[in-house]
Amino acid sequence: MTSEPPVQRALEGVTVLDFSHLLQGPFATQLLGDMGANIIKIERAGSGDMFRSMTFFAKWVGGSESPNFLAWNRNKRSIALNLKSKKVHDLIMEMAKTADVVVQNFRPGVFDRLGYGYEDFKAVNPRIIYCSGSGYGEEGPYVDRPGQDMLIQGLAGLIDNTGRGDQAPVPAGAGLADQIGAMNMVYGILGALYWREKTGKGQKIEVNLLAGMLAHLAQEYVAVLNLGQDLKRPNSGIGHPGMQAPFGIYETKDGYVSIAMSPFKTLYEVLEAPELAVYDDLATLYDKRDEVWEKVNAETRKYGSAELLERMLAVDIWCAQVNDIRTAAEDPQVRHMNMLTTYEHPRGGTVRVVAPAIRMSETQPVIERPAPLIGEHGREILAEFGMAPDDIDSLVADGDMTIET
Amino acid sequence: MTSEPPVQRALEGVTVLDFSHLLQGPFATQLLGDMGANIIKIERAGSGDMFRSMTFFAKWVGGSESPNFLAWNRNKRSIALNLKSKKVHDLIMEMAKTADVVVQNFRPGVFDRLGYGYEDFKAVNPRIIYCSGSGYGEEGPYVDRPGQDMLIQGLAGLIDNTGRGDQAPVPAGAGLADQIGAMNMVYGILGALYWREKTGKGQKIEVNLLAGMLAHLAQEYVAVLNLGQDLKRPNSGIGHPGMQAPFGIYETKDGYVSIAMSPFKTLYEVLEAPELAVYDDLATLYDKRDEVWEKVNAETRKYGSAELLERMLAVDIWCAQVNDIRTAAEDPQVRHMNMLTTYEHPRGGTVRVVAPAIRMSETQPVIERPAPLIGEHGREILAEFGMAPDDIDSLVADGDMTIET
Repeated sequence: MTSEPPVQRALEGVTVLDFSHLLQGPFATQLLGDMGANIIKIERAGSGDMFRSMTFFAKWVGGSESPNFLAWNRNKRSIALNLKSKKVHDLIMEMAKTADVVVQNFRPGVFDRLGYGYEDFKAVNPRIIYCSGSGYGEEGPYVDRPGQDMLIQGLAGLIDNTGRGDQAPVPAGAGLADQIGAMNMVYGILGALYWREKTGKGQKIEVNLLAGMLAHLAQEYVAVLNLGQDLKRPNSGIGHPGMQAPFGIYETKDGYVSIAMSPFKTLYEVLEAPELAVYDDLATLYDKRDEVWEKVNAETRKYGSAELLERMLAVDIWCAQVNDIRTAAEDPQVRHMNMLTTYEHPRGGTVRVVAPAIRMSETQPVIERPAPLIGEHGREILAEFGMAPDDIDSLVADGDMTIET
Repeated sequence: MTSEPPVQRALEGVTVLDFSHLLQGPFATQLLGDMGANIIKIERAGSGDMFRSMTFFAKWVGGSESPNFLAWNRNKRSIALNLKSKKVHDLIMEMAKTADVVVQNFRPGVFDRLGYGYEDFKAVNPRIIYCSGSGYGEEGPYVDRPGQDMLIQGLAGLIDNTGRGDQAPVPAGAGLADQIGAMNMVYGILGALYWREKTGKGQKIEVNLLAGMLAHLAQEYVAVLNLGQDLKRPNSGIGHPGMQAPFGIYETKDGYVSIAMSPFKTLYEVLEAPELAVYDDLATLYDKRDEVWEKVNAETRKYGSAELLERMLAVDIWCAQVNDIRTAAEDPQVRHMNMLTTYEHPRGGTVRVVAPAIRMSETQPVIERPAPLIGEHGREILAEFGMAPDDIDSLVADGDMTIET
């Protein structure tokens, strides 16, 4: 757990009823929680958030905990309820009267049919901000299709844009469509909170993964749709299908380095390869990019990564090492930024996690709680909303609430 | 240009002095502009934003305009000023008295040395929210290194996580580190705006690309750093180094499809390949994932993409087609969502662009202006801040302001 001094919190006093699961919604509410919002994670009674049962490497942190779940659920308290119960429905609507935000990412229509649509919440609290997340929006031909990160990367064109042209395309090795969907939820919710301060009015926000991914491919779309040319993956280490050499990933004696947009003359001079001067105009660097890549790569292979970077950085070539996760965790700048920290989890032990990404001089986001167990805070949350201990007990006895300890 | 009816705007009345260039800052301020903030893009006199001179394919929209610039600069007005001029500095500080937000993404220290640090703006307006973007934060061993999207993807571990294990790693084919940086700026600025409504106080926000990229690899970091196992790129079409089969990209007769997490039994049954049952437990599907991928791929190749998807979707296998940008633009769901629209640009003509990604029931983000020419709105902006026409003329005459028409 970080032990920074207490700070003021940008979203102090904002209560979020978070019915979301998997990645998109939970990352969004974690970002709100990092800023001090009161995140009440409402999981399904019994097994809780589906992400608790998914993992990498077929392994579990502390033998039982999902790294994926641990990554996206800090700064939240959990209550696990049977949303199909009439008694629970009444309870949620009571909680909604004083809540500020509702977040959900069930498939379109599912949550509405249980009586938890925007209109249901608005009826008890017109100031509510209701944010729904989905794969493809709430209508249209794909409305009933499963919406998942890699599927969206493929539909939007990111996968076709990634990898080598002489081989199959590949997804980006992280859940970026989901995570961009989360950022879009935050964008909508915070915009709506600001507007509510001005007008007193709530509203509904719809976010979907496909639209978010398209917006993050805006320059690729603008190029293809306006320049009349398709993006073709290069047959070399060039780093983007629209880019000219030398932009790309190059081999060294002991690994790889990236070289981004840099004056080509500076590059061939620092590599002591003046014969590359014949390629030095924009059209040639694009048309012959794979050939140029091969020639530059033949030079970079003569160096170790550290030596090559030192030479190139000295003349302000835009370049960097290519880390894996473990070397990145030890990278001097990552360490300097304290971007890797820990929290204590009752089953996972001391869990290493990534710290909040932004710095705010007056309202620094901080980690105050680990990811919760299923329904861990059910009793305290219901007590805060005025429920009597006997009524809480009867919810548990009826099987409508799960409390893991 | 979209011709939707007038709407209320979430960020109506918020004025942003936007000194940013390239991608991170401009995408952030475009997102604020889409919500109705008054974005005043302050470019350098003369050549303007550096992104105006960068492009894909070595081609230009309308013969002169950068698709990259066009993608990230709608809903802004431009004024082009010589920030080194004392007269301009006085002018900016006058404008700052009534502005709400300052955004800049110069290399650390550069903007401060010109007299435009947070403390300079705070001195004239303590309510100002000052957001700086950088590659690596404002201090530490890499503070003077160039910060660029692909470099950050590599440093943070995304590149090492992407591609095939028997080949070199590859970057994601879009500027995702930059764009995630932009979303983090929006997250910080909107959080700070909300807090300012409650307290009256401004603050400084620091965003950097490396921290943002790390936060979007949170589940990969949590897995590697807590499970004691490295992420190794698979030697097949498996879609993520931490995932088991069948998660991945598969060949069909006429292209590729993605298959995400789905019950393996359902998959081998729908593929009529019951012999795959021997692999059906989590540990085996991880350990033998490349072998499983080959066997599943041998089945998927028997089908055309459309037929295969229809069969798999009927039993709720999580799957989708892999589009390129052009087929994605014609995809039925993308068309249904109206995610591709146009605006009219004086030199680029009718430019096809990606629409705002989120839907808000009361304050829908809309496109109201195309990307501006260099300094196009200089006169009207200065007039709004009370500057006399003669004084504006003398700024132009002195070479301190550029107006392109």
